[in-house]
Amino acid sequence: MGLRTVNQYKEGLRDGRQVWILGEKVNDVTTHPMLKVGVETAAVDYEMAEHPKYRDLAVAKHPETGEPISRHYYLPKTAEDLLKRHELIVTATRLGDGVIPFTKDVAGDCLNAIWVTSQVMGKEEYIERITDYYEHVRKKDLSIACGMTDVKGDRSLHPSSPDQTHPDFYVRVVDQNDEGIIVRGAKVHITASAYSDDTLVLPCRAMREGDKDYAVCFAVPGNAKGLKHICHPLRYEQSPLEFPVDVPIRMHTESLLVFDDVFIPWERVFLCGEWQYAGTIAYNFSFFHRHTASCYRIALTELQLGMAQAIAEYNGIDRISHVREKITNMIIYLEMLKSLAKASCSDPVMHGGIAVPNPVISNISKYHFAENYHNFVKWVQDLCGGILVTAPTYLDYQNLELKDYIDKYLGGKKGIPTEHRLRMLQLIRIWMASDIGGGIEVLALHGEGSLQAQRMIIYGEYQNQLQEYKERAKRVAGIK
Amino acid sequence: MGLRTVNQYKEGLRDGRQVWILGEKVNDVTTHPMLKVGVETAAVDYEMAEHPKYRDLAVAKHPETGEPISRHYYLPKTAEDLLKRHELIVTATRLGDGVIPFTKDVAGDCLNAIWVTSQVMGKEEYIERITDYYEHVRKKDLSIACGMTDVKGDRSLHPSSPDQTHPDFYVRVVDQNDEGIIVRGAKVHITASAYSDDTLVLPCRAMREGDKDYAVCFAVPGNAKGLKHICHPLRYEQSPLEFPVDVPIRMHTESLLVFDDVFIPWERVFLCGEWQYAGTIAYNFSFFHRHTASCYRIALTELQLGMAQAIAEYNGIDRISHVREKITNMIIYLEMLKSLAKASCSDPVMHGGIAVPNPVISNISKYHFAENYHNFVKWVQDLCGGILVTAPTYLDYQNLELKDYIDKYLGGKKGIPTEHRLRMLQLIRIWMASDIGGGIEVLALHGEGSLQAQRMIIYGEYQNQLQEYKERAKRVAGIK
Amino acid sequence: MGLRTVNQYKEGLRDGRQVWILGEKVNDVTTHPMLKVGVETAAVDYEMAEHPKYRDLAVAKHPETGEPISRHYYLPKTAEDLLKRHELIVTATRLGDGVIPFTKDVAGDCLNAIWVTSQVMGKEEYIERITDYYEHVRKKDLSIACGMTDVKGDRSLHPSSPDQTHPDFYVRVVDQNDEGIIVRGAKVHITASAYSDDTLVLPCRAMREGDKDYAVCFAVPGNAKGLKHICHPLRYEQSPLEFPVDVPIRMHTESLLVFDDVFIPWERVFLCGEWQYAGTIAYNFSFFHRHTASCYRIALTELQLGMAQAIAEYNGIDRISHVREKITNMIIYLEMLKSLAKASCSDPVMHGGIAVPNPVISNISKYHFAENYHNFVKWVQDLCGGILVTAPTYLDYQNLELKDYIDKYLGGKKGIPTEHRLRMLQLIRIWMASDIGGGIEVLALHGEGSLQAQRMIIYGEYQNQLQEYKERAKRVAGIK
Amino acid sequence: MGLRTVNQYKEGLRDGRQVWILGEKVNDVTTHPMLKVGVETAAVDYEMAEHPKYRDLAVAKHPETGEPISRHYYLPKTAEDLLKRHELIVTATRLGDGVIPFTKDVAGDCLNAIWVTSQVMGKEEYIERITDYYEHVRKKDLSIACGMTDVKGDRSLHPSSPDQTHPDFYVRVVDQNDEGIIVRGAKVHITASAYSDDTLVLPCRAMREGDKDYAVCFAVPGNAKGLKHICHPLRYEQSPLEFPVDVPIRMHTESLLVFDDVFIPWERVFLCGEWQYAGTIAYNFSFFHRHTASCYRIALTELQLGMAQAIAEYNGIDRISHVREKITNMIIYLEMLKSLAKASCSDPVMHGGIAVPNPVISNISKYHFAENYHNFVKWVQDLCGGILVTAPTYLDYQNLELKDYIDKYLGGKKGIPTEHRLRMLQLIRIWMASDIGGGIEVLALHGEGSLQAQRMIIYGEYQNQLQEYKERAKRVAGIK
Repeated sequence: MGLRTVNQYKEGLRDGRQVWILGEKVNDVTTHPMLKVGVETAAVDYEMAEHPKYRDLAVAKHPETGEPISRHYYLPKTAEDLLKRHELIVTATRLGDGVIPFTKDVAGDCLNAIWVTSQVMGKEEYIERITDYYEHVRKKDLSIACGMTDVKGDRSLHPSSPDQTHPDFYVRVVDQNDEGIIVRGAKVHITASAYSDDTLVLPCRAMREGDKDYAVCFAVPGNAKGLKHICHPLRYEQSPLEFPVDVPIRMHTESLLVFDDVFIPWERVFLCGEWQYAGTIAYNFSFFHRHTASCYRIALTELQLGMAQAIAEYNGIDRISHVREKITNMIIYLEMLKSLAKASCSDPVMHGGIAVPNPVISNISKYHFAENYHNFVKWVQDLCGGILVTAPTYLDYQNLELKDYIDKYLGGKKGIPTEHRLRMLQLIRIWMASDIGGGIEVLALHGEGSLQAQRMIIYGEYQNQLQEYKERAKRVAGIK
Repeated sequence: MGLRTVNQYKEGLRDGRQVWILGEKVNDVTTHPMLKVGVETAAVDYEMAEHPKYRDLAVAKHPETGEPISRHYYLPKTAEDLLKRHELIVTATRLGDGVIPFTKDVAGDCLNAIWVTSQVMGKEEYIERITDYYEHVRKKDLSIACGMTDVKGDRSLHPSSPDQTHPDFYVRVVDQNDEGIIVRGAKVHITASAYSDDTLVLPCRAMREGDKDYAVCFAVPGNAKGLKHICHPLRYEQSPLEFPVDVPIRMHTESLLVFDDVFIPWERVFLCGEWQYAGTIAYNFSFFHRHTASCYRIALTELQLGMAQAIAEYNGIDRISHVREKITNMIIYLEMLKSLAKASCSDPVMHGGIAVPNPVISNISKYHFAENYHNFVKWVQDLCGGILVTAPTYLDYQNLELKDYIDKYLGGKKGIPTEHRLRMLQLIRIWMASDIGGGIEVLALHGEGSLQAQRMIIYGEYQNQLQEYKERAKRVAGIK
Repeated sequence: MGLRTVNQYKEGLRDGRQVWILGEKVNDVTTHPMLKVGVETAAVDYEMAEHPKYRDLAVAKHPETGEPISRHYYLPKTAEDLLKRHELIVTATRLGDGVIPFTKDVAGDCLNAIWVTSQVMGKEEYIERITDYYEHVRKKDLSIACGMTDVKGDRSLHPSSPDQTHPDFYVRVVDQNDEGIIVRGAKVHITASAYSDDTLVLPCRAMREGDKDYAVCFAVPGNAKGLKHICHPLRYEQSPLEFPVDVPIRMHTESLLVFDDVFIPWERVFLCGEWQYAGTIAYNFSFFHRHTASCYRIALTELQLGMAQAIAEYNGIDRISHVREKITNMIIYLEMLKSLAKASCSDPVMHGGIAVPNPVISNISKYHFAENYHNFVKWVQDLCGGILVTAPTYLDYQNLELKDYIDKYLGGKKGIPTEHRLRMLQLIRIWMASDIGGGIEVLALHGEGSLQAQRMIIYGEYQNQLQEYKERAKRVAGIK
Repeated sequence: MGLRTVNQYKEGLRDGRQVWILGEKVNDVTTHPMLKVGVETAAVDYEMAEHPKYRDLAVAKHPETGEPISRHYYLPKTAEDLLKRHELIVTATRLGDGVIPFTKDVAGDCLNAIWVTSQVMGKEEYIERITDYYEHVRKKDLSIACGMTDVKGDRSLHPSSPDQTHPDFYVRVVDQNDEGIIVRGAKVHITASAYSDDTLVLPCRAMREGDKDYAVCFAVPGNAKGLKHICHPLRYEQSPLEFPVDVPIRMHTESLLVFDDVFIPWERVFLCGEWQYAGTIAYNFSFFHRHTASCYRIALTELQLGMAQAIAEYNGIDRISHVREKITNMIIYLEMLKSLAKASCSDPVMHGGIAVPNPVISNISKYHFAENYHNFVKWVQDLCGGILVTAPTYLDYQNLELKDYIDKYLGGKKGIPTEHRLRMLQLIRIWMASDIGGGIEVLALHGEGSLQAQRMIIYGEYQNQLQEYKERAKRVAGIK
């Protein structure tokens, strides 16, 4: 078997998995009116491999066999490999109209982090298991979600702290035997787990010795016994209040993923008790994944900048000085992000034999877009005018008593049809002043780890350089 | 007649006005499921006058007759008068759980601006008309919306510019006779016009001689022939996805207010052709109204800061240093706003015989909260975690298969019920990561005029001081 | 005796005090070429009391005897008292061309803080002593420096920590007997101590029980045995590279103030071992002193804004949009500061029977100007052009071979003499791009306590309000 | 002839050039106590070529002859060439302890810009002249200053505007004949012209047809008749108030460069009247030069970050949370700069056959460091404490009466000698709170063009992308 078609991917999801949404059990995620939107979004990765225009980008050669594999599952050895991966994710997100397909991208992030850790740890059995699993993923062309964030309970306490209400706020091993381990706990806001073949579960932080039951990493199929996906509802159809648009809706769901004593066979366990390496996985994942985030943000930001320029023109204000300044701010925001994202690939570190995006830069890149995103939103909203959130609806527009008034009075610059202006405002409202817009703000902050998480890593990874620069300063100060 | 009861206010709205929402004509705004939420919100001003605890604040003595009148309709003569008005609006918004009742507050802003302008202009007939109307409003205890923002068309052009698609992008006088004038045009995002007795229509900018047909100011009853209120839909009931809350929903609607050749009798016309005074009205309105905005923002921000502190505690992070820094940022934001809002009252200017909130400070006050609001939202979202937008819904919580998982896994700090945490997250999501939250972001920017409008006035009003300080600098530089 | 003349003030300084500057012992601070500049600057406070125009502002009536006393030594009981004091300091600093006279202003801050603490403590002897000393100060019309900041050693450690290199990093009591106490230690950057009659020494932080030897507060005359003033050099004459200016130079020096086992009689001791009250003094001092700082910054900022406007005009750029935006930023900075400084007076808290500037607001006020000052400098430098730091010197200008070139080529806007432009650039360079300018940047940050000190107090003083707002949020969230 | 030695470079400067400093004529710049510091700083570029460790970096092969030439004079054809140049400038500035040698770096920027323009213009004679001059520079291994910024007069007016006081505010051609042209005017803050062999004079802005006399570009030797260098004084020796340091002082001077009817032979004229290409030169120079600026800022910022870390440790505060946050801010600032500077090389555009640093990114890179530098300074000053500007001087330290007090009381963390702490504070004061520090702040803003200049180019160069992104947004909005 090799690369799968979209239909094969969908077929694989009809496996009896336990999925709920809006309080109801879901029979088939590929046909459920909400969830199928997520499925179609994830499918973009499979479509690209079938599409002549994108095939070369989406498909790589297996390093040993030469067989075609998804480029997401190609272990990066050089800056160029990382830059190719970069291009793939940016392109896929552009195809998704600002939404990343996600299930292979993040899969690569996880697999690479586990790979690095097994090499660094040097334990033969782990190296073998991750090698075997990596081959399995390539051959079956799997989609994989990433189970990273534990529910955590009291965030100021360690997993094993007795001050937690119960011991299950972080996923942990509650039992083990010859065949494998039993895990309990819950991971939260797991994107696309409901329509991924497997989920890779990683520790979300560095741990202490007392936390060793929580130092666990494994792969689990979406239909494992005891695994429950409780999905958050997502936008899945146009509102009747909106002008109809024939571009497909792209969106994902996040799940609360409950492990109700789930059995994991040993061959899918990649860490179990080696608490010293929990941080190694978590950190290396973050280096890859924060770069991945930067990639999809590039594509999203390009689109948002396009919206801003369009509405500025439609409102007749694109030549006004404060508007140009705001557009310039947005350009700077976007181009800084692009430069940082690429620089994290161009200047990788080698960990465990593979090229890892530069830890400091990939974290700064993510931090940059997250820290400044709310201002970006402000600039765009500023260019729209209050009409962004007070415009008559499409229902009003269909009322013949009202349509002429709307067409007459809500026009902007001469020559631009009122409907174009209203459609652009609608698009901006959906992305930047709505439930979805709020979700994207929060995603910027918390997806791929919080601002403070990035700052801690940036500082932590910079200790050697700080000391080097200090020594230079001492010399120039005449301190001997 | 004197102060009206809530029921009398509602009764007055059943007057045959032409109101649409969601594309449908509305029979009775006081019973329409959406619009009645706006009516109830506006009614808070009437309730306060009936409530023993707030009566002293809400009611003033008529300066001549001594009769009780709404304090909103008391012409301010001193800093103390402005500070009382300040306290009234802050208190009313606290009672509205963060939403200002609005229809008397803004009415006062308009009336005062028209009053000042008539005095500055010195035209007897205008002085008489506004005096009469002011008395009428006091006696009938009216609610009044403010029709300020024209639809504008191409924002870079003047009202009378031949490059506009048509001449009606700003409300204008199309005809006049012995009885009055005929006006045409549309005003946009007019809050609460659908459930206000009258609307006061003001020019929204300074004008040139060629714009004189657009230099028009008048009062119009909500049911005037040819006046059409096209309302934006508003939140009016709880979603079944939300934990039920028994606090009433407070919310307003904004209308596109169309003047389809509406007749205005001369006694309700306060400006008609005197283009030099269009700016006088617009500016004086802004001095009052930007202060009013600061008042309601104070009450809203207090509530939002409370949410932030609550969720920080529930998440167990309130003692962590970066969290304290963010809470401190929010305190600074709020207390700066409070100081600026009060300072604009304490240091008024006298225009046309009344005390006007300090032009520079009231504009800075509004600018401060608007310019920095998106960062405030960021800080709050940051303290919540991603769960803010991915939490299971109340529908999930009602499913007995899922409830225990949710209760167990979504708990935070020991001792805080999970439901409390989810309720607080729900409240924050509604206010700061949703359609409503997006609306509030845009309202911060565009309600009461855009950021750039404030900056222009701040700079414009500061010319004398700039020259004074320059002269000091010249002396110290030894320039003679 | 009552108010002193400038000469009497100077006479008092010829008392044998031990003062060094540039490594050399100073005989008479009033005639030393550097130090006399500080003396003259401090003397502005005495001049004002003699000047008919300022006398009413500078002089108050003794609350009991009705005798004239310096308004700085009038215990504030109301918001109005604080506002008068505010006006006095702003005016004095304007007279000092941006430099505060300082020795009475800060004296008031100290005296008030000690007064509050003695009242709060309720110890009769302390109340008597501070009352007596207060009367003494009023009668003798003394100038007083404030010895606040200890040298501290390792800033992460407490005064009594055994990990400090020695126990004397904070001033402490090393012995005591019937007559008084012996103190040892050093206070750092003590402005104007070298030319103040007395110095009031206060603890600079809250303390623990183990620190009780460090919980000491007292007054000491400038010539006390064992007291050494090691002064930092100051600008005292014009450079020959500068265009001559006949406005007097105003400047202060800061001293390292060494207490080499100095004896303090009991009647001048206001705290000795009551470690619980070290914080009370330090905090109350900060509430007054941070307000004082805001006052002098108002006067300084007005002058700096005047420089910015002047150079913008001279360069011909004052109508360019980005320049207007920068000027607008500066106006906002200044007017926010003014509003905050006044609001801290208008909304005082009563501590120990006197009106104390609002703790939260006075700290925000100081924080505001310090946090944003470097940007203010940036905006001004931006308007100048690089010529700010590369302009030919006055020595070049005096060379006849060069003068014509300079006059011709360094002109700006037509009609402005080149010399005016160069003089304005010179003034800006002195204040904002020089040793002095660097000093002012650091003063903004560290004078009156660091940014972090303000943030800690803002947060600490806001705990009750945080809980109140939290309760509101809980109610609205439906949490019971 | 090939690469020159340092001595040969110095020898070349003894050529009778007309140089003034402090109002006095200078005989020999290489021995003048101030100017020789600039000479030694510039000489670093020559030293590197002689130094075995740096020779490979500093020396390239002539593309045709293979002879050794300075790498600065190697026309970049690829991203790799630009990255090599990048490394060279960063390294040279590290060797200069934060100061760029400058005379070859900027020479390359100028030469490349002129080269591009001649190619774009396609005029044979210009191509030949610049080719010849380029060879001449390589063979003679010249140092060259860049005469970019005109004195400008009224900055809101064009060079030829009749509202300027006189027509010579921009360098212009006043006459021409068979041999060459006569130029008049002045260029301002021309770094190192006094000790560069030649100066390349470029137009500093885009021009209109009426400005064609001002559209002139040429090379001129430092000793040309009528050329006058009026130098700004520079730091050239240690102050007796400072702890002696045996690291050489590195510093440059800027000159007002007056062209008093200077003759330029045709073979050194690269533009003369082709006003359409004035902007081409100016812009292409800015792309190179803003990248050059980023390079030297990297080396400088590393050193400044080292100072910050050192003083944080010496003060015992490096583990305190707000200090770590500030250090983290500085790391982000530096690493963003590094990423942007490299990205501008990695993603060049090809203009006139050579690789030009990416216009948008090189401008953002410079904008980033300039816009945020004042905050960087604030963070460093914050970590120092007020002692930064109030510390006793070295004169005090040499006084035996005072030394022990200073040693005892100004110590910080245990184990760090007080002298080390004072030396580090001294170094920080020199760089970040002094005349020099003020100069560096202004240099950040105005060296290589003002903030607004960068913003204009960023916006201008982005028009195609704006339209592309707009089209994407239209498609997603359903606009056809």
